[in-house]
Amino acid sequence: MKLNRTRKQILRALMAKPSTFWELIKEQDGHLAHFTQVMEEMLALGLARCEGSYIYLTGKGKKEARDQGLSPLQPLTCPTCGGKTVTLQGIFPRVLKEFEEIARQRPPAIVEFDQGYVDTMSTVARVAIMYQRGDLENQDILLIGDDDLTSIAIALTGMARHITVLEVDDRLVEFIDLQARKKGWTNLSVYRYDVRHPLPREFQGRYDTFLIDPVETLPGIRLFLSRCAMSLRGKGSAGYFGLTHLEASRDKWYFIQKLILDMNFVITDIIHNFQEYELEREGFVSKNYPLVQRAFGPLPVPDTNWYTSNFFRLEAVAKPRVPEQENIPAGRELYFDDEAYATLP
Amino acid sequence: MKLNRTRKQILRALMAKPSTFWELIKEQDGHLAHFTQVMEEMLALGLARCEGSYIYLTGKGKKEARDQGLSPLQPLTCPTCGGKTVTLQGIFPRVLKEFEEIARQRPPAIVEFDQGYVDTMSTVARVAIMYQRGDLENQDILLIGDDDLTSIAIALTGMARHITVLEVDDRLVEFIDLQARKKGWTNLSVYRYDVRHPLPREFQGRYDTFLIDPVETLPGIRLFLSRCAMSLRGKGSAGYFGLTHLEASRDKWYFIQKLILDMNFVITDIIHNFQEYELEREGFVSKNYPLVQRAFGPLPVPDTNWYTSNFFRLEAVAKPRVPEQENIPAGRELYFDDEAYATLP
Repeated sequence: MKLNRTRKQILRALMAKPSTFWELIKEQDGHLAHFTQVMEEMLALGLARCEGSYIYLTGKGKKEARDQGLSPLQPLTCPTCGGKTVTLQGIFPRVLKEFEEIARQRPPAIVEFDQGYVDTMSTVARVAIMYQRGDLENQDILLIGDDDLTSIAIALTGMARHITVLEVDDRLVEFIDLQARKKGWTNLSVYRYDVRHPLPREFQGRYDTFLIDPVETLPGIRLFLSRCAMSLRGKGSAGYFGLTHLEASRDKWYFIQKLILDMNFVITDIIHNFQEYELEREGFVSKNYPLVQRAFGPLPVPDTNWYTSNFFRLEAVAKPRVPEQENIPAGRELYFDDEAYATLP
Repeated sequence: MKLNRTRKQILRALMAKPSTFWELIKEQDGHLAHFTQVMEEMLALGLARCEGSYIYLTGKGKKEARDQGLSPLQPLTCPTCGGKTVTLQGIFPRVLKEFEEIARQRPPAIVEFDQGYVDTMSTVARVAIMYQRGDLENQDILLIGDDDLTSIAIALTGMARHITVLEVDDRLVEFIDLQARKKGWTNLSVYRYDVRHPLPREFQGRYDTFLIDPVETLPGIRLFLSRCAMSLRGKGSAGYFGLTHLEASRDKWYFIQKLILDMNFVITDIIHNFQEYELEREGFVSKNYPLVQRAFGPLPVPDTNWYTSNFFRLEAVAKPRVPEQENIPAGRELYFDDEAYATLP
């Protein structure tokens, strides 16, 4: 019998050392619904056992791992960049430092808006990738939703021509606007906007680059990408977005990639687990997210930034084609589907 | 006026320092036909000038760069992994060392087969990525074409269940077979096979992972991917391939990605410029490849491994669908199209 990839990834991680539930999430590439199911099976089959916060491989589990030709996991991720491909050089260490000062004062995340922000290093590294690919200097850049404050990291480089933020959360609109006024940035504008409304004409066809970190449902991503596509100048314009594999199965990825190509974008980069999220920890287990409810037993408070996402770059090969928006999700279905395990239903 | 990305990438590289033609290729993301055209325009417009082996920005070029809001290029690629996301840890330094010893004896590249191999570090790093994603241990792995000798790097890990190499070049078939016999590897088999022939039944539906570094024409890639798709077990099977942007425009990438999705694969990773090629140097300029012919003037001998490719990982979301092979390229059109600038016509 051949093992599925998730079970195999868990087995070899546990061969190397006992791990918490949260650490194991980072060692496998499945989505959370699948991960919890595989974990539960492994415990039921007596391949693994829990003791305190840790999960151990049993004798039976060790035998299975050996029978499957597995060896203890050898970490290979680059210790310098953490697999991000870039490090902060040139002006970027200064940008990170100033960004951290500002980000310290940000409004706390609101889970109702699927907020939960990326760590400061990931945010500035995003901007570094945009710079590297030629999508930053003298470009008009649009962000829809910006709880990560990437607009501020971009403004700190002093390189963008103009940055527009469209954001649904008044607190963030005010916070970003206040920082822009304090710093005297005339090239950063922020407006209140709900992605469910049509993109106002003034934002259409005038951007070179977009950046979003959309919700993980298919209708939600479709909506975000459509608004962004409409904002772009045309062929050669670029787009960046984060997509997790934790709340998006490979099947969902497949439909998203179909959609991307249908919109006349080509995918130029997908960087694995580029972004780490600073989610609540005590709150996460006490609020009983689906991940916690459907796990095999009481979970310890997370001991690591276990939630990651992959960073996509797109490039328009022709004028972006915007699909018809027949069914704009009115309420919770914008944020929630069967694979949403770290979102409050 | 907005500059195209290639001109912008060249301008900011030259703002930082004078560069050779070959160095500049690495600082831009266009394809070679486009790159030579942009270079020629810049020289004709008096934005840049050649002196000896170097290209300099003129006063007019510097003004244009400043007017476009550009600043001297700040390299951001991770100095440790070179943007590969992984470094060689665990058993992998040993694999690299042993691989280098073997690779030193390899038969020289034959340009007629579009050979031109990847440097040893890129080859072993490929295997490291396969390991990291769970596509190596106890897997049945197929390679079609193996002038890079990746099969040997895989065999050196001792982790694969079985490795099959299908290769058109008798010299390589013999070389790989000889190494396998010398080392006593019973899990490495190599057969002579021309990708234009149907995949023999014995290789169909029995692999977990494939790896190829196909030719860059659309019919060629279609053919390679079709044979590989036919070799896989089904849903969850994975594939790896190198795709350059230097001989494949983003338009070609687009059609390749359409094809990939049509075959029921999702793209899980695209790592920018993951692979470096050790192409001939003196020979390259003297043999007058299209890149050399169509460049603006006599080119110096390359001073760097200027040819790179991006590393793709695919995963089957369902049983791979193999497209009909109506038009199998019989001759040179397997290797050659309008974007082939580093291939002998």
